[in-house]
Amino acid sequence: MSSEVVDSNPYSRLMALKRMGIVDNYEKIRDFTVAVVGIGGVGSVTAEMLTRCGIGKLLLFDYDKVELANMNRLFFQPHQAGLSKVEAAANTLTFINPDVTVETYNYNITTVDNFQDFINGISSHGSLSGGPVDLVLSCVDNFEARMAINSACNELNLCWFESGVSENAVSGHIQFIMPGETACFACAPPLVVASNIDEKTLKKDGVCAASLPTTMGIVAGFLVQNTLKYLLGFGQVSYYLGYNALTDFFPTMHLRPNPACDDSFCQQRQDEVKARPPKEQESGRDTSFDDKEVTHEDNEWGICLVDETDPSELEVDKNLGQGLVAGVKAAYSIPSSAAPEVDTNQVDTSGVSLDDLMAQMKAM
Amino acid sequence: MSSEVVDSNPYSRLMALKRMGIVDNYEKIRDFTVAVVGIGGVGSVTAEMLTRCGIGKLLLFDYDKVELANMNRLFFQPHQAGLSKVEAAANTLTFINPDVTVETYNYNITTVDNFQDFINGISSHGSLSGGPVDLVLSCVDNFEARMAINSACNELNLCWFESGVSENAVSGHIQFIMPGETACFACAPPLVVASNIDEKTLKKDGVCAASLPTTMGIVAGFLVQNTLKYLLGFGQVSYYLGYNALTDFFPTMHLRPNPACDDSFCQQRQDEVKARPPKEQESGRDTSFDDKEVTHEDNEWGICLVDETDPSELEVDKNLGQGLVAGVKAAYSIPSSAAPEVDTNQVDTSGVSLDDLMAQMKAM
Repeated sequence: MSSEVVDSNPYSRLMALKRMGIVDNYEKIRDFTVAVVGIGGVGSVTAEMLTRCGIGKLLLFDYDKVELANMNRLFFQPHQAGLSKVEAAANTLTFINPDVTVETYNYNITTVDNFQDFINGISSHGSLSGGPVDLVLSCVDNFEARMAINSACNELNLCWFESGVSENAVSGHIQFIMPGETACFACAPPLVVASNIDEKTLKKDGVCAASLPTTMGIVAGFLVQNTLKYLLGFGQVSYYLGYNALTDFFPTMHLRPNPACDDSFCQQRQDEVKARPPKEQESGRDTSFDDKEVTHEDNEWGICLVDETDPSELEVDKNLGQGLVAGVKAAYSIPSSAAPEVDTNQVDTSGVSLDDLMAQMKAM
Repeated sequence: MSSEVVDSNPYSRLMALKRMGIVDNYEKIRDFTVAVVGIGGVGSVTAEMLTRCGIGKLLLFDYDKVELANMNRLFFQPHQAGLSKVEAAANTLTFINPDVTVETYNYNITTVDNFQDFINGISSHGSLSGGPVDLVLSCVDNFEARMAINSACNELNLCWFESGVSENAVSGHIQFIMPGETACFACAPPLVVASNIDEKTLKKDGVCAASLPTTMGIVAGFLVQNTLKYLLGFGQVSYYLGYNALTDFFPTMHLRPNPACDDSFCQQRQDEVKARPPKEQESGRDTSFDDKEVTHEDNEWGICLVDETDPSELEVDKNLGQGLVAGVKAAYSIPSSAAPEVDTNQVDTSGVSLDDLMAQMKAM
C-alpha cells in the first residue's frame, strides 16, 4: 500500500491518515478479513466502502437477486437486474479495487446446512491469516438471520456489528457485540430508534418497506467507520449508535450482557470474561472503550444499560419501563407466548416469544 | 412516478414513504431542480442519492478531472480516470436513472466570467419550472468557492446547504443557509467540528488531505436527507449538523444572521425578513423549523447561536470565547490582518482576515 502523494495512487488519501496523526498503521488494513452478511441497501455500500479503504479480504453472503426495485439505494445498477447480489457485487468491487480478495456465498445462512457452512466460512478457513475472520458485519433485514449470526458469533467468540434500518426508512442503528462483554442479540429484544411514527423493525411478508439511499448510506457509513476504528485502533468504537432522520438525533449507549441469556454460548463467554483479571474484563482486545457509569441496574430483561453520552445528554424516558435512553425502544414490548408457526427451514417470528425463537434456533 | 409494488418498479420503495405516513406527496420530487457545486467525494454521492430518489433535474458544477487518487471515495470508478468529473458523473447518473435531467457545467465558478454564468445558471433558466433552482448544495473543498456560492445565493435570495469534511477526514458538517433568516457564510468564520486533533478546515496547496469514503458518504447522506426534508416538507431540517467520527458526536445548532455582515445582499435579505409580519420572520417557507431559546446573545461576531439540542444536551465550553456549543469551533480563531496574496483569478486564504477576503471577493 503506497503512501506516495501522486494522482495515480488510489491509496494516497488513506495513507494521509497516518501523516495527519489519526491512524498509526493504516496499511495493516490489508491484513484484515471482514464478512458482510446481507448485500442489500446497507451491505452493498458497506462492502464498497471497505473495498475503497483497501480491506484485505471480504466474504459476501446473500441469496437475493438484484431487482429494479433496489435502484432507490446506492450501489447496484439497472443492468445488473437479475444477477445474484453477491455475484454482481463481487464484479463491481473487483473492478473498483482489484487488490481486494472477494469471496461470495450465494445462500440463505438460516437453513441447517448453510448455517454450518456459514460457521465454517467465517471460522476455520475464512481469513487471510488462515484463522477466523476479524469481524462480521450484519446487514440483513430479518430477525432469523440476525439470530443465526448471533448464534454463530457467540459459539466462535467473534465480535460483530449488527445494523438495521426501519421499515419507514427514517431511522436506523448499529450495535457492536463482543460475546460475553456486551449484550448479545439474544440477551434482550432488539433496540430500535423511535421515530415517533408507527413503525416496525422486523420485516413482514407482504409489506413493501420504504427505503432511502440516504438512511442506508448513513448507516453503512457508521458501520464501516466503527469497523475502521475497531480494526485499526483509533477513536472510540460505539456500542450502540442510533439515527433518527426526522430530527437528526443520535442516541448512544452500552448494553451489558444478560446473565440469564438463553444462548448457552453467550453464558459461556460471560463466564470467560468474569474469569479474566479484573482490568481485562471490560474489553479483552481494545482498550479504547470507555467504562461509563451504569445508569440502570435493574430492568425486566436483567441487563444493564450504560448511557454513553457525556455529559449525560439524554434524559431517561421514565415511560420506557426498560430503562432505555430516550429515543430508543425495544422492537417489541413484551414477548408473547403465542404459538409459533414454523415451516421446514425458516423461523417465522410473528407473535413468537424470544424464548420460543431461541429454542427454535437451537433446534435447527 | 409509479407507486406499484412490483420488483420492476424503481420507485416502489420511495412511494412507500407515502403509505408509511412519512411524506405526503413524494412524487413532487420530480418537479424539483437542485444545483450541486463540487462533484468530489461528497458531491458525487450527493448527486447519486438525489438521482436514485428521482429528483427532477440536477445541475452539476466542477472543473476537476477524475484521478485514481479519488478511488478511496464512493462513486467514481478507475476506468473514468482522466474524464472531467461532471461528464463522468452525468454518464453514470443517467445510466442509473434516465428519468433525471442532468446538466453539466465544467468550469471553476470563482473566476469573474464563470461566476456570472453560475449566477445565470442557477437563476433565470436553470430549473424545470423555468425559474431559479429550488436549492443549491455546496460540496466544494475551498473557501473561495463557498464564498462565491454564498454571494450568489444572497443576491438571488436562494436557500442553500454548505457542507464540509475536515482535512484529517474524521469530522464534517452541513449547514443550512436561508438568506436573511440564518447566518450566511460571510456572517461569521466557518464553523467546524473539533476532533481534538490538530486540524485545518481550509485546503492548502501542497498538502495531501486525508479522506475516507465513510465520512464523505455520511456527510452526503446528511446533506441529501435534509434536502429531502426541506423540499418535501417532512421532519425538521437541521440548521447545523456536525459529525465527529472519533467519538460519534453530532452537535446541532442554529446561527442567526450578523446585522453587521459585510455582504450587502445579506443585509438586504435581513431587512426584508424584518419587514415581514412577525410570525413569518422565522421562516418564510417552511414552518417545521423550531424556534429555540437563544443561548448566547453576545459574542464577538455579533451573531446569535441557538443550541438546537433538546433537552439541552451540550454544555457550552466556556473556553470557546465565541459562545459556540461544545465540540464546534471556528475555522480560525481571530482573523489576522496579514497581507493577502492574490493571483489573477483566485483568492489565497492563508493568513487573511475575513474582511480582507470579503473585500477581495467583491473586487473579483
